[in-house]
Amino acid sequence: MDHRPHVVVIGGGFGGLAAAKRLGRAPVRVTVVDKRNYHLFQPLLYQVATAALTPADIAYPIRAALSKYENTRVLLAEVTSIDTATRTVELEGGTLHYDYLIVATGATHSYFGKDQWESLAPGLKSIEDATEIRRRILVAYEAAEREVDPQLQREWLTFVVVGGGPTGVELAGALGEIGLHTLKRDFRSIDPTEVRVVLFEGRDRVLNTYPEKLSDAAKVALEKRHVDVRLDTLVTGVDDRGVNVKGPSGTDRVAARTVLWAAGVAASPLAKSLNVPLDRSGRVIVEPDLSIPGHPEVFLIGDLAKMTSEGQEVPGVAQGALQSGKYVANIIATEVPLRFDGKRGAVPKRKPFHYHDKGNMATIGRAEAVIATKHFAKHGLLAWLLWWVVHIFFLVGFRNRIYMIFHWAWSWLTYRRGSRLITGRVADLPAVRSIAPDGSVILPRAAQTVEIMEEPPAAPSPHA
Amino acid sequence: MDHRPHVVVIGGGFGGLAAAKRLGRAPVRVTVVDKRNYHLFQPLLYQVATAALTPADIAYPIRAALSKYENTRVLLAEVTSIDTATRTVELEGGTLHYDYLIVATGATHSYFGKDQWESLAPGLKSIEDATEIRRRILVAYEAAEREVDPQLQREWLTFVVVGGGPTGVELAGALGEIGLHTLKRDFRSIDPTEVRVVLFEGRDRVLNTYPEKLSDAAKVALEKRHVDVRLDTLVTGVDDRGVNVKGPSGTDRVAARTVLWAAGVAASPLAKSLNVPLDRSGRVIVEPDLSIPGHPEVFLIGDLAKMTSEGQEVPGVAQGALQSGKYVANIIATEVPLRFDGKRGAVPKRKPFHYHDKGNMATIGRAEAVIATKHFAKHGLLAWLLWWVVHIFFLVGFRNRIYMIFHWAWSWLTYRRGSRLITGRVADLPAVRSIAPDGSVILPRAAQTVEIMEEPPAAPSPHA
Repeated sequence: MDHRPHVVVIGGGFGGLAAAKRLGRAPVRVTVVDKRNYHLFQPLLYQVATAALTPADIAYPIRAALSKYENTRVLLAEVTSIDTATRTVELEGGTLHYDYLIVATGATHSYFGKDQWESLAPGLKSIEDATEIRRRILVAYEAAEREVDPQLQREWLTFVVVGGGPTGVELAGALGEIGLHTLKRDFRSIDPTEVRVVLFEGRDRVLNTYPEKLSDAAKVALEKRHVDVRLDTLVTGVDDRGVNVKGPSGTDRVAARTVLWAAGVAASPLAKSLNVPLDRSGRVIVEPDLSIPGHPEVFLIGDLAKMTSEGQEVPGVAQGALQSGKYVANIIATEVPLRFDGKRGAVPKRKPFHYHDKGNMATIGRAEAVIATKHFAKHGLLAWLLWWVVHIFFLVGFRNRIYMIFHWAWSWLTYRRGSRLITGRVADLPAVRSIAPDGSVILPRAAQTVEIMEEPPAAPSPHA
Repeated sequence: MDHRPHVVVIGGGFGGLAAAKRLGRAPVRVTVVDKRNYHLFQPLLYQVATAALTPADIAYPIRAALSKYENTRVLLAEVTSIDTATRTVELEGGTLHYDYLIVATGATHSYFGKDQWESLAPGLKSIEDATEIRRRILVAYEAAEREVDPQLQREWLTFVVVGGGPTGVELAGALGEIGLHTLKRDFRSIDPTEVRVVLFEGRDRVLNTYPEKLSDAAKVALEKRHVDVRLDTLVTGVDDRGVNVKGPSGTDRVAARTVLWAAGVAASPLAKSLNVPLDRSGRVIVEPDLSIPGHPEVFLIGDLAKMTSEGQEVPGVAQGALQSGKYVANIIATEVPLRFDGKRGAVPKRKPFHYHDKGNMATIGRAEAVIATKHFAKHGLLAWLLWWVVHIFFLVGFRNRIYMIFHWAWSWLTYRRGSRLITGRVADLPAVRSIAPDGSVILPRAAQTVEIMEEPPAAPSPHA
């Protein structure tokens, strides 16, 4: 049987997929394990949550992405633990033996120990998260349409976003535009200008990894979209009617039926089973070559790892994952012939990982984005167009690119959002009891008889 | 307040939407009630189930479809009952008073009293049905990829479709093509020619509403796609390992892990609350004007109603729903001014509903469809192109059309299916215990130690 060394890659995200593709041409056997059957283009997940894109637009089957690499197989399975002593990976229902291991299982949100908040304020990491958030946003509008009590209607039309990083800013901007443009004509009892988005950020500016001038530009752009940006403000409580916060002007309460979480990072729990030093957010502190102490055959890449490059911490972005994936794959491809083939030789010392910062970008909304690189910082239409091109370019899969071009062109022209599907459970909506602006008679079940006496049958049936 | 007569439309499918649009220009108030917030293009639902399309491609928000009609409002609500005496509709959490009522809640599948089969063999009526079927199909391939026992692998690669009507034929054809083309390169342990689709039809031909020559053509086209068509065969039992059937050659058992249901029709339960005569499948037997006996202000349209046109039963297809919707809307638009406005007058006698049969079409697969009209019966590439044009044309919403054109062009060129997402639960897969063709060492948890002794650590670590 095939005795080529076996490389196991856990996780089919940016890091894992980049590593697997590089290894597809190396003299190894590769097994990619993921609990999902698709690679997710996470930077656009917020567009699914805000009904602009549909899940299939940003997800691509891992099998399809790797099908041309004969030496690669894909397993749909959840990894339960890793045993570096026996060089085995425990799966739901099986075990994998590896010669090299690449762990790229990414990160999730942190509720800073308040895990009970998760169901009240969902985060945005998976397709399921995105469709759940989409469901809550759309149901909130349906509920507001029915609600006649102005105070309660305002609660339904208030959307809270916790966290002023890229995800939070992008969510808040999109939520503002949904209120201002997308749903304007579709509802009868909602005044779009009533829609309110409140963005809470603990630090003194949004997008704090960006230059200050871009943080300010982003804040202005958000406020144009009816987003109320509250800086230096910490969320101290979350319940199903709103949030309690503590800010410069003391404590405050914001009543809102929809609260979204875009703060904090926690590494995927798998890291713990490695018995290696973790940082505060559970990320593994890796060696300069991204391996773990004492196990040069085990690499951790992407958001899961606390990677440094020339003393600088590598940010938890797609670029960091991509570059670290290629880096470790190159190490393996270089070492394998020297270690396992006939012509064994001295294995060269590994060069430490070097992160090349290509810059960061975030989009706030229609014709408004921010871009920061070493060389320049831009915002506005130009930045937005650049954002657009870059994201089209990096999307996995031909179809998705074609789609995205048409999709965005279409949305841009029509202000519409194409994926406004409420799937799954519909939350309890307010009782139908409004006399709508259009005058349709809608009676509460309780008050039915009463109201019917007040309201005579509109006309005798001509057939009576 | 507004005293225009109030028309309540229950259901935002083809019938309800057609009626609402026609009434959008009439001197009435319209309220459309649906438990979904979207209109579903059901004829293409099988393409979502087979991962060719994604839900948003065939679903369009009812609000958006009707937003331009100022006199129309949309309610996301489930109707629990109808009281024709008080002219009220009971909703989850409210009541609507109506002057005219149009009920268009459609039909669902019938398991002929064997409702316990539903979870084992899901039908295809809703988005949730489609994504569940998609999940089962994709998980079956994942399971087959892992399975080493040839018999068990065959079970995972066998797909049973019950019912040889349009839906059944379209599902079976698509399943055959998925096996033959789509997934060919993506799996390592699956021989696509092993994929088997079995279609069971109780009558002596598939597509029995079509001319016989088309039924034969469809059968041939299906067999080309590795579909085993079993006619005159009834399903007598369904369990999680396959189906029992009774056919010309006696009883038989087909072992399959995926069974899909495309047989039988049952009207939506709402019909019962009307206390009117129902036919065997629960459809309401309506008057020639599609109203119910004694209540000319209550209309039933679409699949929910047993409609006749010149003595002929109207088939349960989109055209029947569309035409009946327009027909009753026209009656209302004609009568309202005479009944409710100042200038009251004699209400003209209603002309009975006339169904104009524009023909039927079904697609079996790539470049293969059948079309039957009064004037001609065609199959093959031409029919397929015609099918394509017609479906593009009828799709609700500009975006969906653009999408579909690109989508299908893309799929046609690449044989790929764009929406192969397994969302939600991943079924229990077989234990990972195969020595894959590529030789990767995959040990069962139980046999782990044993195997490890057989398999020496691939090589000494150069760093040890």
